[in-house]
Amino acid sequence: MELKRVYLDNTATTPVLPEVRYALLPYLTEAFGNPSCLHEWGDVPRDAMEKARKQVAELIRGNPEEIIFTASGTESNNLAIKGLAMAQQKKGKHVVVSAIEHFSVLNSAKTLEKWGYEYSTVPVDKFGVVDPEDVRKAIREDTILVSIMLANGEVGTIEPIKEIAAITKEKGILFHTDAVAAAGNIPVDVVDLGVDSLSLAANMFYGPKGTAALWVKKGTRIMPLLDGGIQEGGRRAGTENVAGIVGMGKAAEIAGIEMKIRIEKLTKVRDYLIRELPVKIDHVIVTGHPQHRLPGHASFCVEFIEGESMLMLLNAKGIGVTSGSACTSRALQASHVLLAMGLPHEIAQGSLLFGLGISNTKEDIDYVLEVLPPIVERLRQMSPLYSKFLKQNKGG
Amino acid sequence: MELKRVYLDNTATTPVLPEVRYALLPYLTEAFGNPSCLHEWGDVPRDAMEKARKQVAELIRGNPEEIIFTASGTESNNLAIKGLAMAQQKKGKHVVVSAIEHFSVLNSAKTLEKWGYEYSTVPVDKFGVVDPEDVRKAIREDTILVSIMLANGEVGTIEPIKEIAAITKEKGILFHTDAVAAAGNIPVDVVDLGVDSLSLAANMFYGPKGTAALWVKKGTRIMPLLDGGIQEGGRRAGTENVAGIVGMGKAAEIAGIEMKIRIEKLTKVRDYLIRELPVKIDHVIVTGHPQHRLPGHASFCVEFIEGESMLMLLNAKGIGVTSGSACTSRALQASHVLLAMGLPHEIAQGSLLFGLGISNTKEDIDYVLEVLPPIVERLRQMSPLYSKFLKQNKGG
Repeated sequence: MELKRVYLDNTATTPVLPEVRYALLPYLTEAFGNPSCLHEWGDVPRDAMEKARKQVAELIRGNPEEIIFTASGTESNNLAIKGLAMAQQKKGKHVVVSAIEHFSVLNSAKTLEKWGYEYSTVPVDKFGVVDPEDVRKAIREDTILVSIMLANGEVGTIEPIKEIAAITKEKGILFHTDAVAAAGNIPVDVVDLGVDSLSLAANMFYGPKGTAALWVKKGTRIMPLLDGGIQEGGRRAGTENVAGIVGMGKAAEIAGIEMKIRIEKLTKVRDYLIRELPVKIDHVIVTGHPQHRLPGHASFCVEFIEGESMLMLLNAKGIGVTSGSACTSRALQASHVLLAMGLPHEIAQGSLLFGLGISNTKEDIDYVLEVLPPIVERLRQMSPLYSKFLKQNKGG
Repeated sequence: MELKRVYLDNTATTPVLPEVRYALLPYLTEAFGNPSCLHEWGDVPRDAMEKARKQVAELIRGNPEEIIFTASGTESNNLAIKGLAMAQQKKGKHVVVSAIEHFSVLNSAKTLEKWGYEYSTVPVDKFGVVDPEDVRKAIREDTILVSIMLANGEVGTIEPIKEIAAITKEKGILFHTDAVAAAGNIPVDVVDLGVDSLSLAANMFYGPKGTAALWVKKGTRIMPLLDGGIQEGGRRAGTENVAGIVGMGKAAEIAGIEMKIRIEKLTKVRDYLIRELPVKIDHVIVTGHPQHRLPGHASFCVEFIEGESMLMLLNAKGIGVTSGSACTSRALQASHVLLAMGLPHEIAQGSLLFGLGISNTKEDIDYVLEVLPPIVERLRQMSPLYSKFLKQNKGG
């Protein structure tokens, strides 16, 4: 019998939709030209790229000329944090981020520190939510930029961006939001949110890896990270990944059309998993916000176990999940997000993250619910932490 | 009758080989996983990426672990110039570049200047060749980095990199070479050249746009431009463009295998064009070095005419060529390369660049030689410069 295979790691990356693949293929065949070229080989890719720019802008209710195509959500966040900070340095050199930002934001802030800037970190509550009043408190006279993510990819929590934006606007400070985990999966409206820049990545909504974008509000000065030619209005030099960009455009278009139905479907399956897993397994903590979370996102901490061993055994059963974020999973560190939410180190290590995708069904979840409990039981039998817990419980 | 279409702009970008497309397609379908993931969906793309790393390393005779994948030649050059300079800043803050570098190098040097560094520019002769002794003269006590390109994309000239590397080595200074126009088109051996870093781009040798690499010699410290996860050994964060990387690997492999035969074929067709064009059209200057030039590269200045109008009329005849570099063509400025070679502004404006590709034939060139002379004649009839020249000639 062939092994059942269930992919549940759509927060790491999503499969590419067939429509997306079909849309981008011509740009790997006859329409291979460089969009910067003035002859007709340049015209077709250039037009396609501009169409994609409109599609991506539409997804987040921005204007096409406000879209800068990049090669990853990481690049978009680097460009936003460093590029906006550098453009504002005469006003001040202080930046505010949350404790649960992606490493592309946190480490960009650390790099700014090396360049003579300072940054403050605002905490989150046990659900991973930033209190807008904490942002207000963190803002100083010399603060030039606040960066709080729209949704966290590890615990799924959606942040009160609109409320925070009201504060930054009042103070006249730029506000960037990392919407890589959110855009394409929940409605995003840059005008309604009131932010000044927003990053998104195609592979988070069934587009290709290697293409992403930064939306920067018209009139906002930003210094490029990549110097060279005049591509992307001089804000990001380099020959464009036309095929990837076209794919991102198509994925954005479809995400916009299907969003409502996707959210309904995903929410149903996700709620089933969140409800049933703690029924099947003792000592499981649901991480992230109970309501304000990404529709396909279910995350847990399974106590007395290391997440990595669980995902290895799940993998042997054909189930693909992750522990912590994709970017950190190979670094094998306890999630800074879970620690910031106040979970102790030993519990944070038992993190398990299910990123449901549009093709996952209730049957996939039933398979997880069948396979995971014996794995947990077996691992706990080998866990010194669990023995200790049992002994204490007996004694008490 | 259908219009004949002849693409002669392979210095702007090359078509993607069918083998390359076939190689990368699985990474847009079933093998869509994120290489950072620890489950089996991550394994296949990770292995494919590591295979590509070997293929790219092999093309330039480097080691796989010395390859950093990026999203463009521009990004590779930015990473080299800024990343190496930042890592060396305690040693000094002076950089040397040539006057004919690509804007990704020149503008990176300008950015370093804003960051408190200084840079010097070494000149070139009328063929666009850097004199190694000029590099020696430009080196100061505080020089930390020299960047001279391996071959120039606008005039095709190949630089004496080995000789320059001997000088930088003697002085204990890092040497980066921009090999974007060269790698995949002529043999490149990083060890033989003696450089410390080298950039190359897939779309210059029949791979996809949006994927490139920087080779950095083992043990050479470099600061990342993109902070975040631990991809590419912590030297370039961001989810990898796996499909593009796999395509680059395949293109590199094929380039290595076919290089000798490609060079022979291209050289023959190119020499035919360089010989015949000035026979068919008066007042044409061949730009770049007569011998030491890229095999598929033929560049000219047609006097008394603006390059842009020529390429528009050639485009109407189905011929795709460029005037100046792809990146500057839309900026409509006279080429800094031609000006640095001592050509006056009005002649530099008549630049015409033929980037021959592996599928071009003598018949394609015959078509150019048939179509271009009447275009030139017509444009000259409208040219005030030409009238002036004729009058002076008559008078003289």
